[in-house]
Amino acid sequence: NAAATLEHCEQWMERLGWLANLDHAADGTTGIERPGWSFSDSEVYKLIEAMSWEFGRSGDPAIDAAIRRLTARVGRAQDSDGYLNTYYGHPQRPPRYSDLETGHELYCAGHLLQAAVARLRTAGPDELVEIARRAADHVCDMFGPDGLQGIGGHPEIELGLVEFGRAVDESRYVEQARLFLDRRGHGRLGEIPFGPAYFQDDVPIRDAATWRGHAVRALYLSAAAVDVATEYDDVDLLAAVQRQWTASVARRTYITGGMGSRHQDESFGEDWELPADRAYCETCAGVASIMVSWRLYLATGDVRYADLIERTSFNIVATSPRSDGRAFFYANPLHQRVAGNAPDEDTVSPRAASSTRAPWFDVSCCPTNVARTLASWHTYAASVGERELTLLQYGSARVETTLGDGRAIGVTVDTTYPRGGTVTVSLDDPPAGALALRLRVPSWADGAVLDEGGRRRAVEPGLAVVDREFTPGEEIRLHLPMSPRFTWPDPRIDAVRGCVAVERGPLVYCLESIDLPDGVELDGIAVDPASQPVLRDHDRVEVQGRVLASGSGDANGDAPWPYQALAGSPDGASAIPLLLHPYHQWAERGPTAMRVWLPTPQPTTPR
Amino acid sequence: NAAATLEHCEQWMERLGWLANLDHAADGTTGIERPGWSFSDSEVYKLIEAMSWEFGRSGDPAIDAAIRRLTARVGRAQDSDGYLNTYYGHPQRPPRYSDLETGHELYCAGHLLQAAVARLRTAGPDELVEIARRAADHVCDMFGPDGLQGIGGHPEIELGLVEFGRAVDESRYVEQARLFLDRRGHGRLGEIPFGPAYFQDDVPIRDAATWRGHAVRALYLSAAAVDVATEYDDVDLLAAVQRQWTASVARRTYITGGMGSRHQDESFGEDWELPADRAYCETCAGVASIMVSWRLYLATGDVRYADLIERTSFNIVATSPRSDGRAFFYANPLHQRVAGNAPDEDTVSPRAASSTRAPWFDVSCCPTNVARTLASWHTYAASVGERELTLLQYGSARVETTLGDGRAIGVTVDTTYPRGGTVTVSLDDPPAGALALRLRVPSWADGAVLDEGGRRRAVEPGLAVVDREFTPGEEIRLHLPMSPRFTWPDPRIDAVRGCVAVERGPLVYCLESIDLPDGVELDGIAVDPASQPVLRDHDRVEVQGRVLASGSGDANGDAPWPYQALAGSPDGASAIPLLLHPYHQWAERGPTAMRVWLPTPQPTTPR
Repeated sequence: NAAATLEHCEQWMERLGWLANLDHAADGTTGIERPGWSFSDSEVYKLIEAMSWEFGRSGDPAIDAAIRRLTARVGRAQDSDGYLNTYYGHPQRPPRYSDLETGHELYCAGHLLQAAVARLRTAGPDELVEIARRAADHVCDMFGPDGLQGIGGHPEIELGLVEFGRAVDESRYVEQARLFLDRRGHGRLGEIPFGPAYFQDDVPIRDAATWRGHAVRALYLSAAAVDVATEYDDVDLLAAVQRQWTASVARRTYITGGMGSRHQDESFGEDWELPADRAYCETCAGVASIMVSWRLYLATGDVRYADLIERTSFNIVATSPRSDGRAFFYANPLHQRVAGNAPDEDTVSPRAASSTRAPWFDVSCCPTNVARTLASWHTYAASVGERELTLLQYGSARVETTLGDGRAIGVTVDTTYPRGGTVTVSLDDPPAGALALRLRVPSWADGAVLDEGGRRRAVEPGLAVVDREFTPGEEIRLHLPMSPRFTWPDPRIDAVRGCVAVERGPLVYCLESIDLPDGVELDGIAVDPASQPVLRDHDRVEVQGRVLASGSGDANGDAPWPYQALAGSPDGASAIPLLLHPYHQWAERGPTAMRVWLPTPQPTTPR
Repeated sequence: NAAATLEHCEQWMERLGWLANLDHAADGTTGIERPGWSFSDSEVYKLIEAMSWEFGRSGDPAIDAAIRRLTARVGRAQDSDGYLNTYYGHPQRPPRYSDLETGHELYCAGHLLQAAVARLRTAGPDELVEIARRAADHVCDMFGPDGLQGIGGHPEIELGLVEFGRAVDESRYVEQARLFLDRRGHGRLGEIPFGPAYFQDDVPIRDAATWRGHAVRALYLSAAAVDVATEYDDVDLLAAVQRQWTASVARRTYITGGMGSRHQDESFGEDWELPADRAYCETCAGVASIMVSWRLYLATGDVRYADLIERTSFNIVATSPRSDGRAFFYANPLHQRVAGNAPDEDTVSPRAASSTRAPWFDVSCCPTNVARTLASWHTYAASVGERELTLLQYGSARVETTLGDGRAIGVTVDTTYPRGGTVTVSLDDPPAGALALRLRVPSWADGAVLDEGGRRRAVEPGLAVVDREFTPGEEIRLHLPMSPRFTWPDPRIDAVRGCVAVERGPLVYCLESIDLPDGVELDGIAVDPASQPVLRDHDRVEVQGRVLASGSGDANGDAPWPYQALAGSPDGASAIPLLLHPYHQWAERGPTAMRVWLPTPQPTTPR
């Protein structure tokens, strides 16, 4: 799958000339016209990052060769002073750093550094790392304490610098990341129509109460801030990001884990502004949310961050790619009113235009972001402490690692999760002496039980801990309750008042119009909240519904004016069973109307 | 009031250089830089149109002088072949008709023609009419059957041509309007990111089922189509617009009469996509909706069109201007989540940025559109037929007109409507013989009664007709029920499910946070739907509410995750009376959170 996506991304970037931009910069053949946006270089770097993680996982020499091939083209495009960007600073191109607000030069550099970190961690130092070092030095030279006092309109350089600085043990890069963070929030960037909150230049990150503005920007910035806080043991900065996470998760996050309510500026909306139909929930914001939560987990050990990672992984990151890995959702709405049309498989799509997954986008940040996340997803599955092994995400896997105290440990995890709720951990190679084996119990898992040491015990959401010596080959089993369930929204979320969602384990479900009988329209359906959702075959869930209105298909029954003195839904004469699929599978069977939040019948006029 | 606004608009356009653009075009001193968007000329024309209607109403010689002054500057900017636009076709400016998709040249010409019609009807032929004639001839020469086969990206030239053609009795202009209409809907305009529906080039107007795309564009186009249908007795074209009106009013219109659900492309959304908080409801779309409904009323005699005119006038057009006439709402949302800040009185605002009315906008179509609508509002109040006088909108006024059969009639209307519900019509100068006096009974007016001829009778929504001879001085009284009432949305309008609105007569009401006691937040309020709204002094309405949640002000009580296994609203311990104001007065007392749709308590978990 990752293989299909990686090849797919490289082919599209070659076809559109985004890779050739590197050659033009190298050969001095740039011109007034140039394919791709100013940030198209970053897609190349995200692809190299994805390939690097994939190579680390599989060791496939073909992927290694692809990385070397791309690295060579990137290296040729670098200027002698370390500057590396194909949009600016070349013949007939705008000058370097002439548009910090929207130019994305520092953003591209940040992605180059992240790619180099992935390469370093999976293959060791090579030419890409040297390119990144020269680029990082250039940025520090230009934007250091005595240099330009600017920041980049789209945060990312901060993340690249702190990660790369840590990876190559160069404090100058980490310091530059801190400098960029501290410069932000003072209105240093020029005016744009969306205002300074769009790029988080309205309030310093240390003072902000919540995430706001462009979602990906806000989240990349926060991810970098956690890393910087960790490097400097900066408890105030860490607390600020924790506070923003808490406030935003409580009031500005969709049930899917999706973030970003507005199309217009791809931004978080206000508190409780969570429309289902116009939910933007950019795939990249899901990726970025996982990046922030992972860093917060590592900094604090609080598993609620891993809960959100799980939710976002299964319902946003897994939703974006089509099952064949060659088409993607850019936006992830929770309600599709009209089935629409599938995009042309051979055409570049506007970012949020089509009702099914598209092969490539005009702004195509999501495919490569999905690719790098899926290729590195295993890195979020477990963590080790001094004498603890913590399993955070569940899938069949072999985990071999070393505890903080130096003891080696090997365990095998066997599970069909999230299809099934049983997770079996075989301690094939436990170390001598006691250790704490910790298993995350998701926040929704009321009624989970743990089989260990010959007995069964109830475990609460949080961490199930077994702290003792283990016998080689011993098995521990966590049973998570996987019955489908109804979930209700906070009464302050206006957009889904009077609605209920269906969840099963970490999966959010949805109702698609292609599963409705002929003549029944999605917007005329209500669900009976007193019924019980039931699991059917192929992971589908059945709930009992009612047909309340004729639906959009037939306007003849419409009132001429939709606001009347009579309240509520008409009594549904016809009961109807409704079959729901996991949300991440939606539109896999072609264009369809869809909704996650299902209306419940409203009371009729009380007078 | 209109006087304040007219002066205000002229001052801003002078200050920003939009008027000086005319002088530069005349003097050949245009340059690469030019203040204002490509459509800023249209604001000058809309101002002249507003001044013309105002002069017709008041006869104020100062306004006449202002019109002449502006007309002279416009005339000097016209090229010898009739072309008139300050953005294109001058030294260092882009060539004429080089961007039909977004260039707005034909749009500006259309507004010039509408201004000339207003001048012609209120002052007779003058220099402005001659300018308009030369401009219309130029458009017909350029875009006639054998000319450029293009259309304008923003409909308006069609409306200008058919109105002006009718006013000066020149069929060539009407024919050109029909040509533009028939050319549209075949994908003739170039690709834009929002797709061809944005400017209604996706489907021919004769075939379209509903309004879609950019709301103002869709409505200007339909207004022109009704005029063209009337000129050619084209029943199919008229039926098409009627069908689109019916479908859009049933499924794509806010309770305020507002149209346009999306900020991003200022468009109608899908059916039932009517978010309260992100409602765009552009003031100009309200103006345009009135233009369409008025033409449909004249073409069909159906008073439901006058119903929508009333609703839109009181709740959109009256909402936009501040009471002093010097600041305006561009967008008219039905829910303001945060109070926000008032805009600087001396600065140009982005179109939908501030939470109170702004003095002027970057794209400033709304102030002049409000001005021309308020200045001509009396023209929507009454109509005459062969032997009928129909009163459509109610306000104290003297109506003197001539019936179709040539008889003169004079009546005096006395009312405090919509404060009070009694409309007294005095037949001071009835003609000899019988006539039909018809009074519109609004669709909401269940229980209206009519006093006439010494007796009282119930009248149904629609038309109350008195068809007989009248005695000079005789009075007829219509009593409309003005008690406040609850109104419920169609269950398919997801955004306001479980909510109720308060209306009184044609007025929609709203709750503002500045009227809540300290510590009570707007988003923690619900209303008791079993209670009865009661009229209080100063047109305010009291309803009984409950405090359900702590509100946004205090996040400490928030669940860490807002989606839970427990349903519904907590029982409200504290009952609270809520005082509502008419929506059109909202934010007159400063920045405030606000909502039209009030949540009702939701049932708790049924299990």
